Parts: sequence; structure tokens; C-alpha cells
Amino acid sequence: MMQKKAPPRRTVSPRNAPPGKPAVRELKYYGTAACRALWQQRPDDVIRIYIEEPLIKPFSDLLKWAATQRKAYHIVTGDELEKITESVHHQGICLLARDKPQAPFPSLLKALKADQQPQLLIYLDGVENPHNLGAIVRSCAHFGIRHILGETGKLPRLSPSACRVAEGGAEFVEQVALDKPLEQLMQLQQLGFTLLATAMQRGHDLYRYEFPQRTVLIFGAEEHGVSQAMFKAADATLHIPGTGHVESLNVSVAFALIAGENYRQHIG
Amino acid sequence: MMQKKAPPRRTVSPRNAPPGKPAVRELKYYGTAACRALWQQRPDDVIRIYIEEPLIKPFSDLLKWAATQRKAYHIVTGDELEKITESVHHQGICLLARDKPQAPFPSLLKALKADQQPQLLIYLDGVENPHNLGAIVRSCAHFGIRHILGETGKLPRLSPSACRVAEGGAEFVEQVALDKPLEQLMQLQQLGFTLLATAMQRGHDLYRYEFPQRTVLIFGAEEHGVSQAMFKAADATLHIPGTGHVESLNVSVAFALIAGENYRQHIG
Repeated sequence: MMQKKAPPRRTVSPRNAPPGKPAVRELKYYGTAACRALWQQRPDDVIRIYIEEPLIKPFSDLLKWAATQRKAYHIVTGDELEKITESVHHQGICLLARDKPQAPFPSLLKALKADQQPQLLIYLDGVENPHNLGAIVRSCAHFGIRHILGETGKLPRLSPSACRVAEGGAEFVEQVALDKPLEQLMQLQQLGFTLLATAMQRGHDLYRYEFPQRTVLIFGAEEHGVSQAMFKAADATLHIPGTGHVESLNVSVAFALIAGENYRQHIG
Repeated sequence: MMQKKAPPRRTVSPRNAPPGKPAVRELKYYGTAACRALWQQRPDDVIRIYIEEPLIKPFSDLLKWAATQRKAYHIVTGDELEKITESVHHQGICLLARDKPQAPFPSLLKALKADQQPQLLIYLDGVENPHNLGAIVRSCAHFGIRHILGETGKLPRLSPSACRVAEGGAEFVEQVALDKPLEQLMQLQQLGFTLLATAMQRGHDLYRYEFPQRTVLIFGAEEHGVSQAMFKAADATLHIPGTGHVESLNVSVAFALIAGENYRQHIG
């Protein structure tokens, strides 16, 4: 199943990474929107296609391209696809493709020095559920937020499951892992970024808050919220006002409300 | 397991509904926030409690109450709770309790005639996924939206799974089923409500739209959106502006963005 037809230069994988280059994982992505966006944004990373009969027509452009590029594709049943993807949510298509590497922090820093546009960055402090992560990524792509930061080793990689939930949005977002988060967030402060932590009931009211031009939004996990160290490092804290009937909102909903308000003030 | 200790007047159930009264279903609710809110908002509906050892302390108030009310409670293992609730998401507690009946449309109409406050009502046109429904209900409770409308037979009842996702919000929201939706929405128009349909890319821009004092927000399912009949009936259409990188947002995220913007303009 893993036989390679693609030219050798494209097949950097754990099994055949050239000496001195890091291995890139191969993943089985699934879901129609996720697969289409992956193909459109980074076609060179596509290795192989698995597709169910009914999707041949809507994906005829992909299959035609695959033929010209000498990429293999297999027409499979739903059951086979479920086994291949290890998910019932495959939606009839799977791409075996290379993982998108996380971006190095120095490149981000350089880009942010060069580009003085209003920017919202996100720092995820413990969000791990792939559904929440995928939904956050989908909203990021919608509102033009291009970078998701997190601590090295804690920022979860975008799994095929999260990519499916993100509905193609994962291809428009870069993950940036920080090995010294507090120090590196300070470097962003020096570039004019305000560190804005989110809380359940304290700090500024979202709907009375004037968003700075450049903000790093620090977002905690649903149960524990933002860590104390991050609250201490933050310039300000924000909450979403409401009735108090529920303790909090879903993390991906809360994130979208804040990202949307920033969009309304600076972009919309 | 279903033996009754409660006084007969409380045990209206499919098995023993008094003649002429509709039977009320008994459901196994679970999740800490959902169970606590149910108990606080409608204690008379609680029939029986199943609880895991570690939750006895945080729920000592509930158990003390149960003892004074002669309601049975059982200390069970996680495995037993998983079988009782048919879910791995029980969080250590289950309440066997009566279902909350949907509210009749004429009562809503009467209440809306009497109360001229700004109001946002929601009409769900095909949203069925319990996770999305639960997340919508949670956001409704947060933003003080008290009524979720839908067509009789199509508006999904709030299952224990949706209630768990709603984190207690289900107790602050009434479902109202309309047997003649188009006619009954017109009756709301006559009370000064604007029917506002949501679309992916057309109609007013959410962030440039001035919300009327009284709005019925018509929300479609993720795949098919709002039906043509509803678009025709609507006074206006609204979309959430963005990059276009993803075709749409998650339905519960989109709902919260619109509800939040209405809150900002009228309540916040």
C-alpha cells in the first residue's frame, strides 16, 4: 500500500529522509474540504489518493491532476476508507500526504517586523481536544488569523481529525512552537504586541474593549483556563460578558467571539 | 431499578400518566453542570441519582437534599455509570429526571405581547447534531436568549447528550415547536419581530448590520443552510464576513457570533 511512484525528491518521509534533513511524517488526511484545500495549497505534499466511487465526479479535477503527475489513486469502498483513515468521518476521500511542518519562531518574528499591519496572533495554553482545535483553526482561516502559537511539546499538531473539523482552514494557518514561551512572548511585546489573556469573568468586557492594532490572544483550555504564569505575563485580561447562567462558553465559540470582535474593529 | 419512592403526584411517566394528561418521558441526564442546573432549576423533576464516589463531596448539597426529599441515590462505579447513561461523558453523575416539555406557541405569543423588551428568538431550520444543538443552547443561556423555535417534529428534543454539551444552559432555554411555522412566524412579524435569515455569503454584513429591537434569527443546518421557503419569508438576510478561505463557520460558532453582536448592540 505504501509503494512509491512519485519522484524521489518528493518522498521525504521517516523511512527515507535524506541525511541531515528532518523526517516529515506522512498522514492520512480525510474530509472533502480538508483534502481539497490541502491539494490546492500544497500539491507537492500529496503522495496518494483513496476515493469512493461517488466522489470521482466532484473530484475529477484532482484525479486528472493526479494522472498527469503520476500520483497513484485508488478507488475504494466506504468500509476500506474507514479502515484506512481509522475514522467514520472520512466523507469518501483520503489523501496520504506529508505533514505541514510547524514554522520556526524566528521566521515569524522577522515577518512581523517587516509587516506592520494589524495582526491578531493566538497563543494556545493547553487546548488539546482535536474538535476544539479544528474549530479554532476553521475560525482562524475565516477571520484571516494566520498564526497559532503554543509551547513546544504542548501545542498539539494538527491531526487529520482536527484538519477535517477545520474544513480546509488548516492550510491557511501556521503553527509556531515556542521553546521559551515567556521570553518569546516578550519579544512580541517589544514589536508592539499586546498580550491579552482570556478569563471567564474578570478583566475587560469584550464589548467595551478597544483592541490594540497588534494583539496576542492567550487562550486556555476549557477546564483550567489560562495558566497563572501567562496571566502574570499578560498586559490585559478580557472576558465575554453574559448572564452567568452557564459558567463559560465552549472554547472554540469563545475564541470566535473574540476574533470576530477584533475583525469588526480592525478589518471588517 | 425503576421502583418509585416519590409521592404519586410527581411520577407522571409513560407508564403511569393520569388519564387525560400527556405522558412525560424520563431521561438519564449526565454531566456535572447539566445535573446541577437541572436540580437547581426544577428539583421536582428529579427522580433518582446515580453518583460515583469522588463526586459525593462536591455534590453533598444535592445528596443531603435527596435524603430530605426521600429521593433514592445510588453510589456506582464509572463502568456502571457508563452503562446507565450509555455514554463515556457522564463525568461521574447521572440524574434520572423527567424531560422538560416543549412550550406551546400561544404561551410564547402571549408573553411576547406583554413584554416589549429587545428580544432575540432563534428558529432552527434543520440543525440536528446534538453537539451543535448543545453548543447553541449553551451560548443561548450565556447571552440570555430564552426561546429556541423550530417546526413540530423537526425541532430536535434536548437529549441528555445535548444537555451535557450545553453545560447546564438547557435549563434556561425553552423549546417551542411550531406546527405551522410560516404562519406562526408571520404572527411574530405582526408583533414587531424582524425575520432574519442567515446565509454563507450573501445579505447584510454582520458587522455593518443594525439589529432590530426584536429579531427572529433563522438558522439552517451546516450542509443545506436555510430552506428556500424560509428565505422567502424572511425580511432580511445576514452573513458573517471573512476571508473566504473556508466556505463557512461551524454552525454553533456562527450562531454565537450573531447572538454576540446582537448582545453588543442591545444588551452589553
